[in-house]
Amino acid sequence: MKKVALFLADGFEEAEALITADFLRRANIVCDLVSICGNIVCGSHGIKVVADLKFCDFYYDMYDMIVFPGGLPGADNLMNSSDIIDLVKIFSNSGKYIGAICAAPQILAKAKVIDGKSVTSYPDDKYRKILSNGKYVEDAIVCDGNIITSRGPATTFAFAYKLVEVLGEDVSFLKEGMLYNYLLDSYK
Amino acid sequence: MKKVALFLADGFEEAEALITADFLRRANIVCDLVSICGNIVCGSHGIKVVADLKFCDFYYDMYDMIVFPGGLPGADNLMNSSDIIDLVKIFSNSGKYIGAICAAPQILAKAKVIDGKSVTSYPDDKYRKILSNGKYVEDAIVCDGNIITSRGPATTFAFAYKLVEVLGEDVSFLKEGMLYNYLLDSYK
Repeated sequence: MKKVALFLADGFEEAEALITADFLRRANIVCDLVSICGNIVCGSHGIKVVADLKFCDFYYDMYDMIVFPGGLPGADNLMNSSDIIDLVKIFSNSGKYIGAICAAPQILAKAKVIDGKSVTSYPDDKYRKILSNGKYVEDAIVCDGNIITSRGPATTFAFAYKLVEVLGEDVSFLKEGMLYNYLLDSYK
Repeated sequence: MKKVALFLADGFEEAEALITADFLRRANIVCDLVSICGNIVCGSHGIKVVADLKFCDFYYDMYDMIVFPGGLPGADNLMNSSDIIDLVKIFSNSGKYIGAICAAPQILAKAKVIDGKSVTSYPDDKYRKILSNGKYVEDAIVCDGNIITSRGPATTFAFAYKLVEVLGEDVSFLKEGMLYNYLLDSYK
């Protein structure tokens, strides 16, 4: 069974983090919510989530993928953690998957793992500049090798499905159960 | 400031509940997560959320809208609560807004507040039968007077935006910040 660690710091974006965890678990992928703060982590809109484990109890070699949600100051808190930066370097060096959405791709820039790679982020000049060592792309979802990046809350469904897909699980069955075919009907 | 109570029982669908709470709060609407179980409520995919208050501390007359997420057994647990059924009747009688998505419209059927009204739910014959006192519609979002119903995880964005809209807050600003215009680009 594939294992994903999704990192939470106070100020994480709730929809980005929890849609992703929900979808991965629906696909029978283990998705552990790992806190770099306390046992209870508070999102950027005040939703408090109980983490599955704290960073001190996290063993990176058991995981196939690490994922970083956006949200402020959550993504800044993750970026300012030397533990997180070291972890990203380890995953990059071993070619394991790294996912980041919205403000979180800045973490990958700080860890210097995006040089020459296609990436995206929340569409803001601040992040375009931070990510300038990569090839900045305006697509909703960008995959380059082991790195998957995306843009913001409304692209989280597609981001989560992409993570499921690269981990080799069945996305079409998942989409059907979650009524993804109704998304276009509901859009206006 | 408008106030919404979103009810959680163990087994609630995380994406449906927490996208909705996130979006409402982004729109400067108070959205309290009210537990009919303990202080910490566990979703149908194992995500544990700290409720803002328990039902025993909930005063209905302070709220403009009540919302019920789907997920099993969460929606069954809500439906089997006499407190919840009484609350739905009170909101219906006073013409206040009631929102329900996925498996949760069954709660409104049990409270007998949908007679002759247009409603939808997760597209399953079980729910079509339960909701047969209403006019069952296959649309992604259905509004009939004070009752707003929707279908499942992938229609939650549109459901949440509709709740914001009927409460009179600015949806277009909210959509822009959340990159809703990227939704179609990301769909495939």
